[in-house]
Amino acid sequence: MSSILVSEDEEVSQFRIADVIAKKRDGLALSPEEIRHVVKAAMAGQVQDCQLGALLMAIRLKGMNPEETMTLTKEMVASGCVLEWPEEWGGLLVDKHSTGGVGDKVSLPLAPALAACGCKVPMISGRGLGHTGGTLDKLESIPGFSSQQSPEQMLKILNSVGCCIVGQSKNLVPADKIFYEMRDVTATVDSLPLITASIMSKKVSENLSALILDVKFGAAAQSPTIEEAKNLAHSLVNVGVSLGIPTIALITNMDTPIGRCVGNSLEVIEALQCLEGQGPEDLRELVLQTGGYLLWLCGLADSETHGAAKISNVLQDGSALQCFRKMVEAQGVKPEIARTLSSNSKLGEASHSEELTVSKTGTVELIRARPIAEVLNALGAGRKNATDVINHSVGAELLVRVGQHVEKGKTYTM
Amino acid sequence: MSSILVSEDEEVSQFRIADVIAKKRDGLALSPEEIRHVVKAAMAGQVQDCQLGALLMAIRLKGMNPEETMTLTKEMVASGCVLEWPEEWGGLLVDKHSTGGVGDKVSLPLAPALAACGCKVPMISGRGLGHTGGTLDKLESIPGFSSQQSPEQMLKILNSVGCCIVGQSKNLVPADKIFYEMRDVTATVDSLPLITASIMSKKVSENLSALILDVKFGAAAQSPTIEEAKNLAHSLVNVGVSLGIPTIALITNMDTPIGRCVGNSLEVIEALQCLEGQGPEDLRELVLQTGGYLLWLCGLADSETHGAAKISNVLQDGSALQCFRKMVEAQGVKPEIARTLSSNSKLGEASHSEELTVSKTGTVELIRARPIAEVLNALGAGRKNATDVINHSVGAELLVRVGQHVEKGKTYTM
Repeated sequence: MSSILVSEDEEVSQFRIADVIAKKRDGLALSPEEIRHVVKAAMAGQVQDCQLGALLMAIRLKGMNPEETMTLTKEMVASGCVLEWPEEWGGLLVDKHSTGGVGDKVSLPLAPALAACGCKVPMISGRGLGHTGGTLDKLESIPGFSSQQSPEQMLKILNSVGCCIVGQSKNLVPADKIFYEMRDVTATVDSLPLITASIMSKKVSENLSALILDVKFGAAAQSPTIEEAKNLAHSLVNVGVSLGIPTIALITNMDTPIGRCVGNSLEVIEALQCLEGQGPEDLRELVLQTGGYLLWLCGLADSETHGAAKISNVLQDGSALQCFRKMVEAQGVKPEIARTLSSNSKLGEASHSEELTVSKTGTVELIRARPIAEVLNALGAGRKNATDVINHSVGAELLVRVGQHVEKGKTYTM
Repeated sequence: MSSILVSEDEEVSQFRIADVIAKKRDGLALSPEEIRHVVKAAMAGQVQDCQLGALLMAIRLKGMNPEETMTLTKEMVASGCVLEWPEEWGGLLVDKHSTGGVGDKVSLPLAPALAACGCKVPMISGRGLGHTGGTLDKLESIPGFSSQQSPEQMLKILNSVGCCIVGQSKNLVPADKIFYEMRDVTATVDSLPLITASIMSKKVSENLSALILDVKFGAAAQSPTIEEAKNLAHSLVNVGVSLGIPTIALITNMDTPIGRCVGNSLEVIEALQCLEGQGPEDLRELVLQTGGYLLWLCGLADSETHGAAKISNVLQDGSALQCFRKMVEAQGVKPEIARTLSSNSKLGEASHSEELTVSKTGTVELIRARPIAEVLNALGAGRKNATDVINHSVGAELLVRVGQHVEKGKTYTM
């Protein structure tokens, strides 16, 4: 190909990006070819940043129909590798995704519990940004834990342990990284099709047999109302099913924190309690429910209830805890720490702690998750910017429960 | 200031840009402080390109009210220098801006005619992009003509000649350059507030006493309908008056080309005919009308009609032509060419020309400007991209007039 031809090609694609933006600006649906072109050109560095910003805003304001959203997801997956698994694992590959809640440590007991039931769980998780915590940040309060595992290492860990919880590797959905970073600074995060494509492209690239989504609504969730959560759930399930992955979504409330601990190392301790068959009931309930559905979806249980009973068993008999210990050992934690890990382990204890006394006699009506998260984040538990360093020891224990009578001047213990 | 403080400042401004984008995304009016912040941060390189793209699209889709538009214009002016003139020129500084038409060479006779009437005309013009021609491209078909003149050179030329027609210098409204280049590739060119701010910031930076705007509508104009042209005219006049410049807008039709020549060197010849008191009536009419209003606005005539008569005089008596010759000489054209410049001068003649024969007997009902411009541009008279090189010799002479009876197989001459 001569250099003149190359230069003409560039002109043509340059011209077309502005046309694609104009089409979305005018509220028209983009064709699969146009969506493919944008994603490919963005990956090739042939789209100007200002063009991507304008397109993201046009999508945020004019939306995308289900077919466009599905195509965008598919093309984002095609921007990178897809994980490949041995044929004999067919039907067993499962994962869960939560839209993010305060005190949401469900993934930590769930992944090893599913592995203990015979599933393969290649869980790719994220870090916290804003007021909700990130699964990887929590796990990194275990000294030595490494979330950076290549696809080859994931395969090895799934082979020996059955589950891993890792960060997104560079080769998976690189287009999402480009779009996500831009959405963050262009006020286009809260776009249904863009959220859907971002979440589902990562899950599709895991090459799953079944997927469950925990879509939160409420004061501390990304979707304040149940209607918004339902719309998101429908959009996510629609894309999952369209792309061949049996997908279920739960819609759960996120006004009150999950469990009684918020903060990275405290949440790991609480997850370990759950893995010991103990811990708060709401956490255990979510683990049984999400795990139960997944076991049913992938054919390892006859019903969701049957699946939940199986999950309950592996939490009670210690086999889930064993899987968790093996997983963190496989992900870099020293054997002497990993093999004795329990809810009594010392993980990043706070240098200073303070018990709050009750300021007014009465009954606890609500424990508002969002202000708790915001206070903890301000103390260093979370990030304002993606580059902020986290203090894993910062956390809060909720020493009273909803419905409990409390008296002025008193302190309470767990 | 410590480096920690600087870094905090940067974080704060980064944060605020996304907030400003979100506000406009939600259809809210931006405060003067927010608009100032965006323009200043963009100039300082503190806004990411994707953020500017997103903001431009949000403005394109959600609009700006007159106050926001006026503030944006003012802040864009403040991004650079404002031209300064001797006190004794107070009240005499005038300019015209056209939204662009096919065959629109009005500026070429108008500027020297106004100078011949005693005005000072620091006309900053643009280049053609798309199907409409640019005044600077036309003038550059005169060998040696240079549109690059510094503010100091402009002052010198206005002092000796009374008028100049120059390109935008880098120091004037640099923010417009940033925004305009992005609008071009982000499908946000056709935004009323952005068009208004772009046009008016450049005119305000000329520090004018009076301004006339020629807002075109029709098939070959940026505004296809008269309603759109009226909206644009109102927006432009509103900003001009708000910023202290007496401003008038004409709304004129742009279905048929202005004059009988389209193409750079041919249009200079036609402008010279006008300066010789000859040439097509519609061109002469527009020069008289726009010039008449300006003379009235700046107090050199009692009425628009009186002003038009004064313009007519300087076209007839040769003094406007003299000003034109002096102007192009001051802008780099060799004296031997400049001082004898007339409609008989040889300027970039085409190497090949072809007369079209009438294909069907009948009456000419319409001469459609847009297809003529598009054919000429494809032949090299205009630019598809800002970096394209123009062939000044490409052009068309319209040898028949609207209303003329033509016979099949015949050719006609002027």
